Amino acid sequence: MAAREYTVAIAGATGVVGGTVRAILEERGFPVGDLRLLASARSAGRKLEFNGAEVEVQELGPGSFDGVDLVFFAAGGSVSKEFVPQAVAAGATVIDKSSMFRQDPGVPLVVPEVNADHLASHTGIIATPNCSTIQMVVALKPIYDAAGIERVVVSTYQAVSGSGQGGIAALDAQAKQWAAGEPVEQQFYPHQIAFNVLPHIDSFLPTGSTKEEQKMVDETTKIFADPDLKVTATCVRVPVFGAHSEAVNVQTKRKLSAAEARELLAAAAGIEVVDDPAGLQYPMPLPAEGKDPVYVGRIREDATIANGLDLWVVSDNLRKGAALNAVQIAEELVSRELI
Amino acid sequence: MAAREYTVAIAGATGVVGGTVRAILEERGFPVGDLRLLASARSAGRKLEFNGAEVEVQELGPGSFDGVDLVFFAAGGSVSKEFVPQAVAAGATVIDKSSMFRQDPGVPLVVPEVNADHLASHTGIIATPNCSTIQMVVALKPIYDAAGIERVVVSTYQAVSGSGQGGIAALDAQAKQWAAGEPVEQQFYPHQIAFNVLPHIDSFLPTGSTKEEQKMVDETTKIFADPDLKVTATCVRVPVFGAHSEAVNVQTKRKLSAAEARELLAAAAGIEVVDDPAGLQYPMPLPAEGKDPVYVGRIREDATIANGLDLWVVSDNLRKGAALNAVQIAEELVSRELI
Repeated sequence: MAAREYTVAIAGATGVVGGTVRAILEERGFPVGDLRLLASARSAGRKLEFNGAEVEVQELGPGSFDGVDLVFFAAGGSVSKEFVPQAVAAGATVIDKSSMFRQDPGVPLVVPEVNADHLASHTGIIATPNCSTIQMVVALKPIYDAAGIERVVVSTYQAVSGSGQGGIAALDAQAKQWAAGEPVEQQFYPHQIAFNVLPHIDSFLPTGSTKEEQKMVDETTKIFADPDLKVTATCVRVPVFGAHSEAVNVQTKRKLSAAEARELLAAAAGIEVVDDPAGLQYPMPLPAEGKDPVYVGRIREDATIANGLDLWVVSDNLRKGAALNAVQIAEELVSRELI
Repeated sequence: MAAREYTVAIAGATGVVGGTVRAILEERGFPVGDLRLLASARSAGRKLEFNGAEVEVQELGPGSFDGVDLVFFAAGGSVSKEFVPQAVAAGATVIDKSSMFRQDPGVPLVVPEVNADHLASHTGIIATPNCSTIQMVVALKPIYDAAGIERVVVSTYQAVSGSGQGGIAALDAQAKQWAAGEPVEQQFYPHQIAFNVLPHIDSFLPTGSTKEEQKMVDETTKIFADPDLKVTATCVRVPVFGAHSEAVNVQTKRKLSAAEARELLAAAAGIEVVDDPAGLQYPMPLPAEGKDPVYVGRIREDATIANGLDLWVVSDNLRKGAALNAVQIAEELVSRELI
């Protein structure tokens, strides 16, 4: 008997995450029978390659999901809000990258290395977390399992690709204007991003935190199913094209030495430890771009508390932080026969 | 009676910090009678402007300090190690920017807004702290005085100017190579700095921390004269030309609301609060470059601990982080009649 193939759709197919989902489905040989690329009217008619064939982009609309088994939503929250329910009503299983359903108690929020078991309860929608959360929870997972986690203080160094094509275009244009000796024009971000850092990602909440910071708190507790896991975050945009970095300070419940943490991390799924200070080797965004692992390095004991660790965590926000995690969820759905 | 004027020398006069000391002495009208610019043989003979006149750079050597009242050392540790004792022996008072004497118990380590009173005990040498420490302790001071500080978790976003001209040249060259579509050549730093971040400043210690990180620990406790003040730091180089940024998580001894902290910070010497999320105003390195204040924003309560605050602190590392702090020390020495 031939293995089952799936009719797969990508909503937001022409965006940076949608394009990366398409590339990763091909790379990993996901059993795609038919691929439907969906986008706004503006992009309809464009042709994109998949497995050596050209696929024409269709306008997302009524009927887009007829006969579809699996939809990756890689557009914004408003697109997900309107069309995810339509896809579910049409019988498809949805993996949604937007923040729209992440805190819905009926929607599992999944990072396969951490909580693939949550998939069993899905009722048509699985949410994939925010990029900055995903790479952190992958790094925290082996530590959580071995020693428990009391509190996390995280500061991020996030790439412009996390904002989509507008962010990439802004850094590209501004850096080129600067190099040409021309005035640097503000575009897309509220302030210049080239040669600058912006302590501002997503919009501000009345608490003074940004939504991005609040997502790291809320999503981490949901993924670990541990409302007592405490996270405080400062999220910062840096002039890097791809891959987010994070300085993560962890207070565990039981003592872990740096050597024990390093060993646990090195053995964990999805993690590559790069931690050779003598050889000047540590994770950095530039070499992480286009790669799959969550890179962890600068693993140190933090002597200011009884059970403290400092980690430096880097991963490609478009891959593990978005598209790869979504495809891995799809793979889990297939292998667990949940689709 | 005419106000006293001082014969002032700058050792390392042609470096980025030395040049900034010269500019700030002029800007602030420090009572310089005679200015002696000292550098290596390679730079001797160059002419630099001061108060409208040209001053010829002299080679630093024996006799450089004869008749000098005050010397700013703005060269590396090895220059300070060799020549600071000679300057003191010649009767000069030294303000040293290097790390050479910072942990010497007989040498006050001073940030005037925080511990100008330590100057009284000087015996010829006053050390000025590392750039990343200075801006943090200025921001912590009003909080420390009002509520005490138990522990600080800091992650830095440090500009290339902190590495001197080599760092600036590397980012400049690499960004221009990138813009021209040319291969980006590694120079100065062990890895590309343009469009990348390096979790590595100064050399690595056996603990796994860098010297830069350890400086933030040791210098903060010395400046506050509080060995119980706990600091854990992750120091990171970002592709920004000037001004360091820091995400600072503070655990105070007594509760401070964000509003109380904001009020204390706004009233404190050397600080400008920029904290208007609704107006998208927060401290950033680009507008801070060339400015004197330590900018503090993103002031939030951290609900993960009983007495937690998150702050975002930005300042020009060449000015308050180095040259301005040194000149302010000189001004305090004058006003306190300690020179």
